[in-house]
Formats: sequence, C-alpha cells, structure tokens
Amino acid sequence: MREGERFGVRTVAYALGWELVILAAAMVAPLAVDYGARSTETPAFLAATATTLFVGVALILACRAPRHALSLRTAFLMTAASWLVLSGFAALPFILGDYTDTVTDAVFEAVSALTTTGSTVLSGLDRAPPGLLLWRSLLQWVGGIGIIVMALVLLPFLRIGGMQLFRSESSDRSEKLLPTTAAFVTHIVAIYASLTLLLVVLLTLSGMSLFDAVNHAFTSIATGGFSTRDASIGAFSGAAIPLVLLFGMLAGAMPFARYVALVSGRWNLFWQDRQLRLLLLFLTAVILPLALWLSLTQQRPFADALLAAAFSVVSVVTTTGYATEDYTLWGTPVVSLFLVLTVMGGCTGSTSGGIKMFRFQILWIVTRDYLEHLFLPRRVTSRRYAGRPVTGEVAIGVLSFVFLFVGSWALFTVLLGALGLDPLTAISAAATAVANVGPGLGPVIGPSGNFASLPDAAKWLLVLAMLLGRLEFFTLLVLLHPSFWRR
Amino acid sequence: MREGERFGVRTVAYALGWELVILAAAMVAPLAVDYGARSTETPAFLAATATTLFVGVALILACRAPRHALSLRTAFLMTAASWLVLSGFAALPFILGDYTDTVTDAVFEAVSALTTTGSTVLSGLDRAPPGLLLWRSLLQWVGGIGIIVMALVLLPFLRIGGMQLFRSESSDRSEKLLPTTAAFVTHIVAIYASLTLLLVVLLTLSGMSLFDAVNHAFTSIATGGFSTRDASIGAFSGAAIPLVLLFGMLAGAMPFARYVALVSGRWNLFWQDRQLRLLLLFLTAVILPLALWLSLTQQRPFADALLAAAFSVVSVVTTTGYATEDYTLWGTPVVSLFLVLTVMGGCTGSTSGGIKMFRFQILWIVTRDYLEHLFLPRRVTSRRYAGRPVTGEVAIGVLSFVFLFVGSWALFTVLLGALGLDPLTAISAAATAVANVGPGLGPVIGPSGNFASLPDAAKWLLVLAMLLGRLEFFTLLVLLHPSFWRR
Repeated sequence: MREGERFGVRTVAYALGWELVILAAAMVAPLAVDYGARSTETPAFLAATATTLFVGVALILACRAPRHALSLRTAFLMTAASWLVLSGFAALPFILGDYTDTVTDAVFEAVSALTTTGSTVLSGLDRAPPGLLLWRSLLQWVGGIGIIVMALVLLPFLRIGGMQLFRSESSDRSEKLLPTTAAFVTHIVAIYASLTLLLVVLLTLSGMSLFDAVNHAFTSIATGGFSTRDASIGAFSGAAIPLVLLFGMLAGAMPFARYVALVSGRWNLFWQDRQLRLLLLFLTAVILPLALWLSLTQQRPFADALLAAAFSVVSVVTTTGYATEDYTLWGTPVVSLFLVLTVMGGCTGSTSGGIKMFRFQILWIVTRDYLEHLFLPRRVTSRRYAGRPVTGEVAIGVLSFVFLFVGSWALFTVLLGALGLDPLTAISAAATAVANVGPGLGPVIGPSGNFASLPDAAKWLLVLAMLLGRLEFFTLLVLLHPSFWRR
Repeated sequence: MREGERFGVRTVAYALGWELVILAAAMVAPLAVDYGARSTETPAFLAATATTLFVGVALILACRAPRHALSLRTAFLMTAASWLVLSGFAALPFILGDYTDTVTDAVFEAVSALTTTGSTVLSGLDRAPPGLLLWRSLLQWVGGIGIIVMALVLLPFLRIGGMQLFRSESSDRSEKLLPTTAAFVTHIVAIYASLTLLLVVLLTLSGMSLFDAVNHAFTSIATGGFSTRDASIGAFSGAAIPLVLLFGMLAGAMPFARYVALVSGRWNLFWQDRQLRLLLLFLTAVILPLALWLSLTQQRPFADALLAAAFSVVSVVTTTGYATEDYTLWGTPVVSLFLVLTVMGGCTGSTSGGIKMFRFQILWIVTRDYLEHLFLPRRVTSRRYAGRPVTGEVAIGVLSFVFLFVGSWALFTVLLGALGLDPLTAISAAATAVANVGPGLGPVIGPSGNFASLPDAAKWLLVLAMLLGRLEFFTLLVLLHPSFWRR
C-alpha cells in the first residue's frame, strides 16, 4: 500500500473533487447575475468557476477509487481538508475580482462566509456588484448545510467534544426516524431548502426586493449574518422584516434532526428537545429584562424595545450577527452582557457556532454530579442526558472542548492585543471569530464597524480562529498530532 | 442526636472559637502599635479585640465536645464557616474605626485581606494609622498560612477540583516526608514563619524601615499585595527592594510541601516538582519578550526593563498584586496579556490563587489523551501526573473547577457590567477577585487605581467572588446544595 493511501488520501481527494464541482456549480448563480447586471466582476467569476470546475473534475478523474467505508483517520482528514480547500477556492472570485484589495482580505471574507461567521472587511455593500453579494450569501448558505451535515453525521462518528452523545441520532432504534445516513442527509437538505424558500417568500411579502430576500434568507437560515447593506438590517424599515429574520435565525439555530420529527407530524418530539427548550428559555430570560431596561432608560415604547432587544440577542446567541441598530450604544451595562452572549451558541446539529446549549447542559449535569459526589462519596450515580448515559468519555469530551474554546479565546486575545488592538476589540474579536458570530464590540469591529482596518496579521489570526471554532478544535488539532501520521 | 450535631455543628463552633482566639491574639499587635503611636484607632482595636476574644472563648466553653475524626460534611462546614466568620470579625477594626466610611468598605477590605486578594478601597495609606496598616498586612499573613494548610490538608481530603491528586502528599509512603498531619502542619507553619523572618531581614538590609519591612514581608509571602503606600512598591527607590519582594512573591507561590523536602536537604525533590518547573518556565517565557519589547519601545536600558517586566508579571501571576509602576500605561499590546495573566495562578499548596499550574498540566494531559483517543480509539491509555494516575474523577474535578472558574468570571463580568462598570473594568474586576490577585485593569481599578469609587453592590459582588475563588468554588457551593442538609 502506498504512503498516501494509508490515510485514504485518494478517497479524500475524490470527495474534494465532488465538493469543488458543487462549489463551481454554486458560482454559476453569481456569474449569471453579474453577467446580467453587466458588472465588472463577471470575468473574475468566470475564471474562478472554470478553475474550480477544472480542479474538481481533475481530482474526480484522477482519484476514482473503489468505495470503502470511511476509516476514522480518513474521516478526520476529509472533514478538515474540505473546509480548508473549499475556503481557498471560495476566495477565488474575491482574489480575481477588483472588490477586495489583498489576498488577505479575500481569504478573510471567504472563510468568514463559509464558516457562517459573518465578519466582513467589505464596505460600500449597497453599491457592490450583485453577483459578489450573492456569492457571499451563497457561501454562507452552502457553509450552513455543510455544518449541519458535519454536526449530525461526521462529528458524532468522530466523537468530537462529546458529540458521541448524538451518535445514533440518525439511526436510533427506539425512534427509527430514517433508515440510512444517505436518506437522512437528503431529508435534512430538503428541510434546509424548504425553510430557505419559506423565508424568501416571507421576506418578499414583508417588502424586500427578491434579490435582498434571497440573500437574507440564505444568511439567516445559515446563521451567517452577511447583509446586502452596510447598515445590515437597520437599512430596512418596519417591524415585519426583523420579525421574519428573527424567525429565520431561530430556525437556523434549532437542532435540525428534530425537524425530521416535526415533518413527520410528531410535534411533541420537536418541542420536547432539551436543547431547544433551554435555548428558548435562556433567550427569554435575557431578552425580557433587557427590553424592560431599554424601554425605561431610553423612553422607548415597550414593543419597540422588545423587538430591538430580541433581534440583537437572538442575532448574537444564534451566532448570526445581523444588527438592526448598534446595541453597543445602548450603554455600558449591556456591553459585558453581549461579550458573554457572543460565546453561548445555539443548539448542536444546527448552523450556529459557539459552545452550544447541550454542552452547558452536560457541564451542569457533570458539575452537579461531582458536587454531590463530594459530600456523598459512596452514592451510586448515573449521569443521564435526554435518556442517554453521560459516560466519562462524553464528560471529558465536553469539558475538554470548553477548555480548548476558552483557552483559544484567551490565546487569540493576547495575540491580537500584542498586534496593537485595544483590549475590548481584541477580546471581542477573538470571541466572535472562535464562536463564528460576526461582529465584535467597540467602535472598530462593533455592529456598525468593520474588520477592514485591522492589520493583516490580525486578519490571518482570525481566519485561523474561525476555522478552529467551526471545526470544533479537535478536528483540526488531530492533524497536528505527530501520531496521527504514524502507523 | 440533635439536628445540629448531625453536621458536627458543635465541632465546627468549637474550632471557630479557637480560630477567633487566634484572631484576637493577632489584633493585639496592631492594638499595641496604635497605642504606641497614640492613634485615634486605638479604641476601635480594643473593642474589636475584646469582642473577638469574648465570642471565641464563649464558643470554646459552650461547645467543648469529645474529639472525633472529622466527617466529610463537618469538614466542609468548618472550611467554609471559618472563612466567612473570620472575615466578619476581621472587619471589626475597620467597622469600629474611623478609617472606612461604610460597613461595605470595611467588609470588602477585610475579605480582600484575608483571602490575600489585595484589592483596596483605602487611600491615603502613607498617612494612615500604623496599627491599621499592620492589621491589613497581618490579615493577609494569617490568611496566607490558612490557605496553605487548607490546600495541603483539607482540600485533598475534600477532593476539591482535582486536589485528591495531592491527597497523600503529607503521608506518601515512598517519600515519608513526615509521619502525621499535625507534625506536617507544624513544619509548614515554621517554614512560613522562617521565610517571613528572612524577608524582614532582607528588606531591612535593602533600606526599608522595620515597620515597612514587616508589612511587606507579610504581604509578599502571602502573595497578598497590600502595601503601606498608595504608590505600592513604586514608593521605594532602588532595585534592591523590588528584587527582594520578587523573591518573596515567588517563595509564596511555590508548593509549600516541597519546602519540607528542601529543609531536609533533598534539593532535587524540590527542583523536580513539576508545578514549580512549569511556573518558572512560564514566567521566563512571558518576561523575556516583554522586557525586550519594553526596552525597545520605551528606550529603557534592558536591565531596567527586565526588572520592571519581571516584577509586574510575577506580581500578577503569583496573584500578589504589587506594582512598581502602572503597567497598563506600557501600551495597548500588554493590557490583554495582563488580563489573561490575572487568572493563571501559582502552584497549588501555596498562598496564591487563580487556576494554578497543576490544573493546566492536568488539562493538557487529559485533552491530549482525549485527542489521541479520537483517532486511536483502541489504544490503552494511562494518564499519569508526577507518577500518580489521573483518574476520571481527578480529570472531571479539574475540568469542573475550570468551568466554574470561567463561568463565575463570565457571570460576575455581566453583573458588574449591569451595575454600570465599563467593560474593561468589569471583566478585570471579576478576574482579579475570582483569582484573588488584587488590581484590575483600566483607569478605575488598575494598578494606580482603587476600588473605592465602585458602587456598593459591586463591592458586595466582589466580596462574594473573592470568597468563592479562595474556597475553590466547590467548598462554598456544596453548602447551597439541598442534599447537603438532608440525611
């Protein structure tokens, strides 16, 4: 067996080939739009599409191999390589076009898009070529479904950060939602597309143009947060559009496996999901006092304050990153709150990033159990989560994940600080990148700011942080372990 | 059996009685100094001493009980109650005297002293009554030895946050350092007192007055950080005093159990300690680049920059909190660094707070093991730390501790922010209190600032945070668990 085949490099390259073909197919939409709008970006898209398609087809033809079941190492390699390689090709239209100045900016924008982070270095979006805007949104949409499939199929298989808890979610014997992985993935993609279509319709009915509606449907269901306007959602008047997008962001942050239950009429299975309940409870517990406080301190009608609070909190917690207004101007008391909200995350098996609800539930269960064990050492404990046993491996997986999350946050804060970013910018940039949210805090990278003015080194650090966070740390880190490459 | 006795309330009250008698004895020193200086605070100290002594003796007489081995619950109750009750009585001289305005300030100062945090609400220290200054320093010194004994004897017994790893440190069969707990504690106290005396001599030789030397010897070995001057160590000229205090802070942050080996001539056992090595390595890795950067950006001689960097970094990492100069004025790049340094901590079994070196080592071992297990699932692993197995219980203990640490930090940041503190003040105040360091960051509570201007509610939150951090969370939290009080 040749060196490369041991790790299934052929298999990985073959899969990458198909992924690149899909990416090239996705590029056709902005290419067509730009061609129709006679935009100067058309040649860039044409070249990018051709290059991506060529490399994709070449990989497929060169690496056709008999199909095996995936080995553990091959699955790791494929997951990490997919995000890294696709990010590179996704940056091609930016690199070849005139709209970003440097390769750094192009890669930053592409990685921010594909990881559904939503931090941007672009400004003047309102006058940007429509194909370019569509490409950003489409990347988030493609990234979003990639994340869901990765979280539902690959991460439980790879046992990343306690995700083995969800290992048999797609083939649970007691519920038997769907027979095979392929059928399961097809259902998930269909649900994702249907929700997107629903959002397009609702946004158009709320007064958005079809183009804006498509873009925002893509970036809300993907909890990505790119907008077609510099002022983000603040550019659209009325309450209808924010309300629809609120629904879209929440829909994107729900556990997608449960939608399958919902579609098959078993509503109770959906609403009984523990993550979903905690997320809604948590959001309510934050939004209500914040709305009350806003309405009191700013003499705003309560309904108006409630919408503003709900939109901003949901936007940050679901890791979307839209803004209707600059919540950092609401006053000092809320800035620290939004910093902590940045890292919470939605439900696992959704498009959102961050630590995520089920990990807080496991942390609570494990820590409470440890606490009880301290004064009742002989008690026999059985930690359970949603009916499944929380084994030592799951507990350590979740706790290690949180340690890596917080450790990376601290490390990136120090490194960004050392590059000269002020403390609030550094700490919130690190948080927003690792949790794949989008905007940071403070005047530079806050909801009305932009990442363009950061030094190049900071942008590359944030690219790394976004990828680390999106791949839930372990998936990238295993590749750095010397033993991974040894027999 | 009566209700109270079930939890050993008599035993706890009896022990508290003796602790109060010791506290009253400690009060005699500042009382005498103030009397000699004809200070207006003398009546306050007299009343405080009498009250503390009276309550102590009353408890001893009322609760004399046959001596038992401590039950687990009684040990928890005793540990938590000791810190809470002693904090209250330690505040008496401040409450009864004229130097603090409110009970809030008095309790804040006392808790900050006894937990060896070193945040202060007092200013005008240079003209403060000497007895009051001595009382602050003495409280840190008493708190320091209390922390060491708690960390070496009680916390391993209570299995707090992975401390069971150090369970048999005092009676390890292979090393047999000392036969019994009582003899072990006596040795530790003797070493603590000897180190203090050594520091007094060295500080006096370096040009400090005897009074200043005694105070700073107390607060450096205790990694407490209270000074007799508003400008902290910056008030003293020359390099000798900072160098001696650098040694004192490091001595206070070392694992005290290893000093016993050092005293008995087994130097190698001391230098082979893994925590000690990591601490020194980590400090060097931070100090050298910082000194280089300081010397380049500020055109300072390298020796001068090295001393400034070493003093500030050691002060924060050992959780002391002295300042020779305001390091937050060194420039934006270092502020984020110092925020992260705030929570690191020294070695366990020392007077320092924070997360502490051994926990980082366990986190590293557990996370690396989990990572390897991901792609080598059938590998048989044996996690070991300094020759001892890192069991699942130890791993979960350490990881839960870090989760509670970071979670409390986040929670206190949000609460302090909600009270109107700006983000940098809120996040650094929460960090400095939970890690028992002292100064925060920013103009308000930074190294040249003061906690006096914070709202009362913020001070009470910080009191709670200091106690939680000092009691390593679990010791206080078990008391809040309903099952603790049930049979």
